[in-house]
Amino acid sequence: MHSLESLHNRIGEAFSSTMFDQEPFQLYQPIVYTLDLGGKRLRPVLVLMSCDIFGGEIETAVYPAMGVEIFHNFTLLHDDIMDNAPLRRGNATVHQKWDTNTAILSGDTMFVIAYEHVAKTDPLLLPQVLNLFNDTARKVCEGQQFDMNFETQPNVTIPDYMTMIRLKTAVLIACSLKLGAVLAHAGEADAEKIYDLGIELGLAFQLQDDYLDAFGETSKFGKAIGGDIATNKKTFLFIKAFELAKDNTLVKLTDFYSDKEITLTEKIAGIIKIYRKLNIDKITRLEIERHHGKAMEILKTFHFEPAKTREMVGLMQEMLGRER
Amino acid sequence: MHSLESLHNRIGEAFSSTMFDQEPFQLYQPIVYTLDLGGKRLRPVLVLMSCDIFGGEIETAVYPAMGVEIFHNFTLLHDDIMDNAPLRRGNATVHQKWDTNTAILSGDTMFVIAYEHVAKTDPLLLPQVLNLFNDTARKVCEGQQFDMNFETQPNVTIPDYMTMIRLKTAVLIACSLKLGAVLAHAGEADAEKIYDLGIELGLAFQLQDDYLDAFGETSKFGKAIGGDIATNKKTFLFIKAFELAKDNTLVKLTDFYSDKEITLTEKIAGIIKIYRKLNIDKITRLEIERHHGKAMEILKTFHFEPAKTREMVGLMQEMLGRER
Repeated sequence: MHSLESLHNRIGEAFSSTMFDQEPFQLYQPIVYTLDLGGKRLRPVLVLMSCDIFGGEIETAVYPAMGVEIFHNFTLLHDDIMDNAPLRRGNATVHQKWDTNTAILSGDTMFVIAYEHVAKTDPLLLPQVLNLFNDTARKVCEGQQFDMNFETQPNVTIPDYMTMIRLKTAVLIACSLKLGAVLAHAGEADAEKIYDLGIELGLAFQLQDDYLDAFGETSKFGKAIGGDIATNKKTFLFIKAFELAKDNTLVKLTDFYSDKEITLTEKIAGIIKIYRKLNIDKITRLEIERHHGKAMEILKTFHFEPAKTREMVGLMQEMLGRER
Repeated sequence: MHSLESLHNRIGEAFSSTMFDQEPFQLYQPIVYTLDLGGKRLRPVLVLMSCDIFGGEIETAVYPAMGVEIFHNFTLLHDDIMDNAPLRRGNATVHQKWDTNTAILSGDTMFVIAYEHVAKTDPLLLPQVLNLFNDTARKVCEGQQFDMNFETQPNVTIPDYMTMIRLKTAVLIACSLKLGAVLAHAGEADAEKIYDLGIELGLAFQLQDDYLDAFGETSKFGKAIGGDIATNKKTFLFIKAFELAKDNTLVKLTDFYSDKEITLTEKIAGIIKIYRKLNIDKITRLEIERHHGKAMEILKTFHFEPAKTREMVGLMQEMLGRER
């Protein structure tokens, strides 16, 4: 059995020992830069964890796991162009540091590199692995489109939002877990069940991200508070608040979101105050708990060895930003 | 045996009977639009032709062939953003008709759809097919990067240029032919040989495109004469002309390329006149013939049935814009 820490180390080692730098350097340097920014590498660790928990040999899952992480980083690179984001993990985004064309083409190349890593798998499992990966990649693109649509779409509902984050965020978490199961030769029913667990975990993970934007501590969250509020992003908090706000509160909420006269600090503070008044913090935490709870329930049905279950619970807790 | 015409029809039918339209329509409409623009669909026909000539069942090659064509159209979509091109096949490019974000994300999705089609293949052949496709896709990205580098790079040589078009254009032609061979269960040596044929054919094909920009007839070429000259594009003609021009001719050539005072019509006419004086038309035709001849020589070594060879020769002639 592998501890959560050893899986993190294995993935870190896999990336640090891979030479992504090639010719033409104008194409590959932004890829090296992006992958060097790191991040928590949660998705590839989920692949290895799932492979291990289903009794597979984690070494057979290292390349596909890297493929998932490289794909994830490719989507961030292209999303950052679309969102015109200046920073990623505290550093300049590729389209800022270089230019948009570089970000497009280096992103495309990362996508190919992701497929190259996914292809390094047991040939007998390749059809299943490739179909899973294709299905996931397509859904992630659809999720990003829904997210962009929301920017100009009035009346985005909570169900609309949950559909979007399921596609944009949760399916890749679910794919990671299912991929590990497939590579461990788990049965189809088990693979589907761990996928469903991943969906719940992924939804909780994204809601947690929404929550921390308003109610987190900068030191733990790693980014400034109120980024979503500043950009009028339609998060769970935003949609829920407009759903619940009435009369004077609704007027004030609308004003804060549209008033160009107030400072950003005033806007963020004012909206967070209304969020608290409307119990958006508690409602969001309940929703996170609900999805986390569903994931835990599915986990229990597997009857894994207790030690392995503990590692998996630990990884889920890490993803939801809790102490073990 | 299938005639060249019947292979064209089979590919046309495959595309017209596939529903690419799905939700969210903002994502899929640009994909439908792009694929509806058509084009000659030479690459998927090459896949089927190669499969047929090696004794394979063309129906097994239809999906992978579509994958190659969808991939090709994806690269055009992203290239058009990078080149800031307003038109593609006489119609507005996706980033013009919609916007850059749409073109990025719809392109990414087309890339996934290409992989989905490539995946619809005999599972036993999938590892080989996927590796070929990944290798090709990566090289095409590298070729596009070299092409972009050329814009600001002084002293691009003919060997530099040939390396670029090999990657950007020829490897996908070669991949198409090899893919057909692999799907027909051809031996490895034959698959490599038809790949090499494809490289020569692809180089001739791109040089022909360069040639027609200056010396073609608009009615046959399908686009206005002098587009490459207008944008100072470093084609075979451009590089060769600067290599050969001396003294006063070099001064005049440099002037035409840098003079902002003259009209575009004057610039194009003046440069074509210098090209003719330097025999660039004849030199380019010789180079096209050389690569076409190499491809024909490789074709002869196969000893295919004469009728099949004739169809293949016909397709090569179609690609190089000749009467049969």
